[in-house]
Order: sequence, then C-alpha cells, then structure tokens
Amino acid sequence: MLLRSYVKQTQSYRNGEDSSSRQLEQSIARIDALNDDLKAFVCTAPEQARLDAAQSDARWQSGRPLSPIDGMTIGIKDIIETADMPTGQGSPMWVGFNTLRDSATVQALREAGAIIVGKTTTTEFANSEPIFPSRNPHDTGRTAGGSSSGSAAAVGAGIVPVAIGTQVVGSTLRPASYCGCFGYKPTFGALNRGGSYDHLSHSCTGLLGGSLDDIWAVAIAIAERVGGDPGHRALTGPSETPLSRKPARLARLETAGWQAASPGARQSYEAALERLAASGVEIVARGGDPELDAFEDLIAEAHPLTLKIIGWENHWPMGTYAARDAEKLSEMTRSRLKQVESMTVADYHEALDRRDEIRARYAGLAARFDGLITLAATGAAPRGLEWTGDPKFNVPASLLGIPALSLPCLTDDEMPLGLQLLGRSGKDVELFEVAGWVWTCLQPDAGSAA
Amino acid sequence: MLLRSYVKQTQSYRNGEDSSSRQLEQSIARIDALNDDLKAFVCTAPEQARLDAAQSDARWQSGRPLSPIDGMTIGIKDIIETADMPTGQGSPMWVGFNTLRDSATVQALREAGAIIVGKTTTTEFANSEPIFPSRNPHDTGRTAGGSSSGSAAAVGAGIVPVAIGTQVVGSTLRPASYCGCFGYKPTFGALNRGGSYDHLSHSCTGLLGGSLDDIWAVAIAIAERVGGDPGHRALTGPSETPLSRKPARLARLETAGWQAASPGARQSYEAALERLAASGVEIVARGGDPELDAFEDLIAEAHPLTLKIIGWENHWPMGTYAARDAEKLSEMTRSRLKQVESMTVADYHEALDRRDEIRARYAGLAARFDGLITLAATGAAPRGLEWTGDPKFNVPASLLGIPALSLPCLTDDEMPLGLQLLGRSGKDVELFEVAGWVWTCLQPDAGSAA
Repeated sequence: MLLRSYVKQTQSYRNGEDSSSRQLEQSIARIDALNDDLKAFVCTAPEQARLDAAQSDARWQSGRPLSPIDGMTIGIKDIIETADMPTGQGSPMWVGFNTLRDSATVQALREAGAIIVGKTTTTEFANSEPIFPSRNPHDTGRTAGGSSSGSAAAVGAGIVPVAIGTQVVGSTLRPASYCGCFGYKPTFGALNRGGSYDHLSHSCTGLLGGSLDDIWAVAIAIAERVGGDPGHRALTGPSETPLSRKPARLARLETAGWQAASPGARQSYEAALERLAASGVEIVARGGDPELDAFEDLIAEAHPLTLKIIGWENHWPMGTYAARDAEKLSEMTRSRLKQVESMTVADYHEALDRRDEIRARYAGLAARFDGLITLAATGAAPRGLEWTGDPKFNVPASLLGIPALSLPCLTDDEMPLGLQLLGRSGKDVELFEVAGWVWTCLQPDAGSAA
Repeated sequence: MLLRSYVKQTQSYRNGEDSSSRQLEQSIARIDALNDDLKAFVCTAPEQARLDAAQSDARWQSGRPLSPIDGMTIGIKDIIETADMPTGQGSPMWVGFNTLRDSATVQALREAGAIIVGKTTTTEFANSEPIFPSRNPHDTGRTAGGSSSGSAAAVGAGIVPVAIGTQVVGSTLRPASYCGCFGYKPTFGALNRGGSYDHLSHSCTGLLGGSLDDIWAVAIAIAERVGGDPGHRALTGPSETPLSRKPARLARLETAGWQAASPGARQSYEAALERLAASGVEIVARGGDPELDAFEDLIAEAHPLTLKIIGWENHWPMGTYAARDAEKLSEMTRSRLKQVESMTVADYHEALDRRDEIRARYAGLAARFDGLITLAATGAAPRGLEWTGDPKFNVPASLLGIPALSLPCLTDDEMPLGLQLLGRSGKDVELFEVAGWVWTCLQPDAGSAA
C-alpha cells in the first residue's frame, strides 16, 4: 500500500504527463472512498486545495516550482493551526475553533507550494485518550495508533504521501509503525513548532510518509523557510535525501519495551538483525558492552520520568481548560491534572536534572556507534479502538531529544511493524544516511548489500 | 503617584478595614476617570472582577487567602491570553479575537486569587509600532513607552499595583522608566510564557509595579504555580521579597545608550552614583577594567544583532498574517518581513552563535561584581505619541537573557527616569537583594546607608 516517492515523480509534472491537480484529485477520491471508515481526517479543504493545486500545475509547467515538494498533497495533525480550517485538538471543547492563522509548519509548506488537503485526527490534546479514534488502514478493526492517528492512517492508506504529526512520547513513530509508514522524529527544536498546540519541553513536530525521500524533502523545505524552534538550531542538510551509508557498528537497544514485545515482533526483528549482520554490520547487544548495559538501566525509567515532566508542563493549559468546562475533558486528563497538584517546581527541576544526566550519558554512548537500533512498537497495532498502543519503545528518543526514524520493514500478526533507528542530537543527516542503507538492505529482493 | 505596597497592606483585609472589593472599586473608578485620556486599557472585565473580588474578600475574612497576592487587582498586556477578554495584540487584524483560554500567567494569577481587571494597550504585536498609543500619566502629551505601554501607564497612574508586560528588546523596562514604575525582566525562561503571543528566543514575561514587594510577590506566585517556560528552570526564591543587601562592587555599564542619553538623564544618574559611592559602594567604570572595556565593545552591537534574530524569528507568524491581509499590517511590519526574505537559516545560526559568545563573556564579567548599573532609558519619555522611545539601554539585558530591574529613582526634564540594575542569569534573588538596598539608599530622605 506504500506510495512511490512523490519527489521522484515530479519530473512528469513538467511535461504535463501528471500534475499536482491530478494527484490532489486522487487524494480527494481516496478520502471520499475511505474516510467514513478510517476517520483519518476530521475536516478537509478541497476547494482551497484545488485552487492551490492549479497554481502549482502552472508553476511546474513553466519550469518554476517553488520547491521539490511543490504540489505535494499533505495532511496536518489537528493540533497544528491552519488559517482555512479549525484546529480541534481532538477535544470536544475545541471542535470547530478556528485560530485564523497558519502554524509555522503550514506557512512554510504553503510557501514551498505544498497543498494542504485536510486536518488529521488526533487524540485529546495529543495525549493518549482517543476521543475521536482513527482506524488502521491495514485492518480497520485495529487502532491506527496515536496521537498522530489520522496522519498515520492517511499515509498508510495511500491518501497522501506525507502527513505532519508531533511526538512527545510515542506519537509519531508508534502510529507510523502500526500503519506501515516511515516515521521521523527530528532532533528536539529542529523544526519550528510555532502555532502547534504542542508546547512540552521535549515535544517536536514529526513527519509520516510513504518514503524516506518525501519525508526528507518536506522536513528540509520546512526548516529552510521557518527554521527550528526559536533559539534552536534548525535541521540543515542537502536539498535531496542524504546518500545511503553502510553503518559499521550499531548498538542494539532493548529499552523497557523489549519485555513487552510480542513473539512475532521479536522474531521479525531478530531476522532483520541477522540480515544486517550477514551484510557485515557489527551489532553490539546488551551484555557485550558495559556502557550500553549501564545506559539500558538508566533508560528503563524513561516513561515515568517523561510522565512527570509532561504532567507538570501540562498544568497549563489543562488548568484553564478545566476552569472553563471540566466536563468536556476526558477522565484521564482530569486525573492527570489532579496528580500534578502535589508536584512542586522543585520536583520538576529535579526531573529536568535527571533528564539532563540521561542525555549526557546517551551522548557518550552514541558517539561510539553509527546508530542505535530497536523496535518501533511492541508489536502489531492492538485490536479495538479504545487504546492507541504501548509507547515504551518510543519514549527514549523523545526524552533524549534525539532524532529517530521508523522504517516499515518488519511484520507481526500479518500487520506492519517498524524498525527504529536512533541517532545523535543534531545529527539527523547521519541518521538518514544509515537508515537509507538499512532500508535497502532489508528489502525482500535485496541481495547481499555488503 | 506611586502606590504603597499592596502585599504590605493586606493585613487590613483580615479585619475588614479594607478589602479586595474596595481596592477593585478604586481601580475601576480610576479607570473610569483616566482611561479615556490615557488609553492604558483596551478592554476591561469589571463584572467578572467584582465576582472574583467578592470571593477574595471572603477568603481574607476567613483567614484563608490563596496567596499573598489574593485580591490584588492586575492588568494584563494585550498579547497575553485571557479567557474572558479578547487578545487584540495591538493589531487591527486581531481586535476582538477571543482565544477562550487563559495564558499560563493569567491561570496562575487566578489560582493565586488575583483579580484580572483588564487588558492593557500594546504596540502592534509587541513590536515598536504604536497603532493604539497610550499616554504618559505624568504628562499626557508624552508616550507611555512601549510595547508594554498600557501596563506602564496603568501602574504609573496608580490604577493597579502590578501589571504584566513582556520584553524582547526594551518593552518592560523602558515604559517602566517613562511612567515612574518599577520594571522587572526576569532571567530568560523563568516565567512561563504559555499563551502569550511572544515566542521569540530571548523574550520573556515582565512585570511592572508600584513597589519591589508587589513585583516579587506576583512573580513568585506565578512561578510556583506554572513554573517557567517548559524545559527551563523557573524563578525560585523566598515567598517574601529577598532581604536587602549592600553591594560591595558594581560595574557601571555604558552600552550604546550612553551617547544618546540626555544631559538631564546623565546628571541625575551621576548624582545617584555619587550617592552610592558615598555610601561605600565601589563603582567600577569604563577605562578602569579591561574586561569591562572589552564587554562594552561587544555589547555595542546588541541592537542590530537583536533585530537580526527577532527578524528571522518573526518570519512566522508575520508571514501568515501577511497572507491573510497584508493591508492590516503596519508599514514597518511589512518592511521587516520583506527584509527577512534575504536571510537564510545559516545567517540565523550565525547570529545565535554570536549571542552565545556575548553571553559567555558576560557571565565571566558579571561573576566579578554584585551587579551592573546603567540607565533604564536615554531620558524622559519623548513628547508625542508616534514613537515609544529609544530602547538602547534595554537591549543588552534582553539579548543576554539576564534579569534586570528598573528603579524609579531618577528624573529628567521633570519626568520620572529609571535606574537599571543587571544581574546574572538565574540569580534573580541576588538582583532583588541589591536592588532593595540601592532603592533605599537613593531615597531623598535616606541617611547614609553605609
């Protein structure tokens, strides 16, 4: 169900064989056919999109596209502001609320000529409560994951080549894994979050896409135009996907997720690692490296530490939402708000100190490898729509503020499953280089890539 | 015209001699009497304020105030979200737009029992264009300064004991200086900016008040409840104003402002420094310390460097505002947006590197002193309402991310003028300690404080 790469096919736009408008109509037709079932989009703007696509057609035909992603049809997670559509935040309190402006990401995408087709479903405030659930395109009896639920479903169903998400715990890579897309969580701060209701201290804008090429092209188009978060170094790198590079040495990370991983997920993962090893990549595992062992112990507390940090940081705005109409908040949000009442600034500072310490240890460890490898989820998307799945494998990259990619090259229970690669802070290009090689190496038809 | 300290008078609320409601009615009466002229407030919420004040009365009378600032009447700069009033951002584009939620600051103030009486006038998007000007309460033919224009006018006119502002260039300390209030710009990140349209990388929430006690009490009440910016260490310290401490050694900083300072401002400043010296404080000046001399050279470029940084950082959201209706933006905003088109991410990163370098040099210098001292403005508030004044003396603290206070103890042209003290990053308590002593030392009726 994966799309071919969009940015590799735009050559055909120049001679009129294909066009932004034709691609948009295919997206709209798929939305019409699938969205009642999938609930990937909470709203769409087809008329504005058609006007924008017509202008894109003209630019390609005159040989003056605004960027490599000119005309690309893109979905936007519904916590991210769009001037022409409401930003509902997955909450009954905010359904239909229009902020009348574009977020930094959306402004940049429009400046690059991309077509914003609609807003994609999210859990309540991009936390874990799926008040408006999305269905998994590979099995509609299962969740699409969360909180970037609709973005993953839209890409996984082949509706759009790329959709924008966010991640503070596991909100980009987990749904990417479940829906069979590539997922990319950049280095913290590398893409401007302005106008995203996503203010937490290790949260970031994430991308879900049908190919590494498309994800890279969109990420760099955003960074070139609106940079990273104010005060942070933005994503930089080549305008085309970084060239693949074979890693000499990868660290195999278990995290707290391994104990929860399904037998099928483990089996698929082991087979992939064997294939990488057979191609000459050294895989260093727990028990074979004291520094790695020590780090595994540290990172085991990633989830409770994350919940402590984001619990405090969510006191606002959840407090003002509760004051407005607590009945419109989920039970979970109300209970988390209650929990934070016993927390002090000093507790929060202590949690930040601990995060700093874990980050410093990771930096030392990761400098010795070409990347770290682990699962992107504990297994296939769970059945049912009440739970968006276990984020244990995703918490570490979020807490560490490092870049991570999920590659849709594993399976579990006849469903897609992601292989996760973790990089070093600010070294997103390195991560894409290694991921490109790993992806090719693990293709069913790949020979020995050594 | 300065108010006595609010937090020192609340004892009388317990026995019913005075009350939150009575104070609020005085504020409302002064608004009714003065605001048509001053334009300090763009909108008020007297009915909600009265309901809140009645609850505060009951808490004081039952001996259970929520905090030392329970019942304090406060004005909020109109770029900061309030659930019950629109947030107009000083822009014709946003007049009347209601975001339906409180900012972190306002949420914390309400949790602490404070009474939000109205929104105070700001320049367009808290930049320098006074589309809706405020008048100076000490001479209504003069500007109140900007961008926290209305907050300064409201405090200077004795309408409220404290008003909330923001500062990214000189937006808190300059209007404080012009209107005869205390102004406080905390360490960058020390007060949560959530829900303030104020996203720039060295911007922060500032406070304007009639006394150091009230400013401290409000700042600590906010920090205790919603902390600092996510990921940053919040302001911490005692619940009451830090005790005064005599500084042994202050560095006298000229900045690019000194050349622009008026003769009257210079004279008043020199007299204050003589008085401090006479009380036994060593004042180290330019020419007497090579490290200070070198820093003066560095900080001379603070203003152009700041404009470069915030120019890039304002590409969003000004780009989306221009796309919506460029005619509703000031000529200045449109021209700045135009300028940034020639800037790249690399240029921005270079500017951040330069800022880091200047900050590191400052940290080394400041560690050798008990504080740095300079003017808070080049002179009295300029005549006329078209220009909010020269921020040259304010840029350094903003760029450096350090805490700064303006004390209303100088004069120029029979108008108030502020003496500025600069502290060290994260050491806001130290700054208040020194400022308390300097303030007392410079009172007309003070004896030798040595």
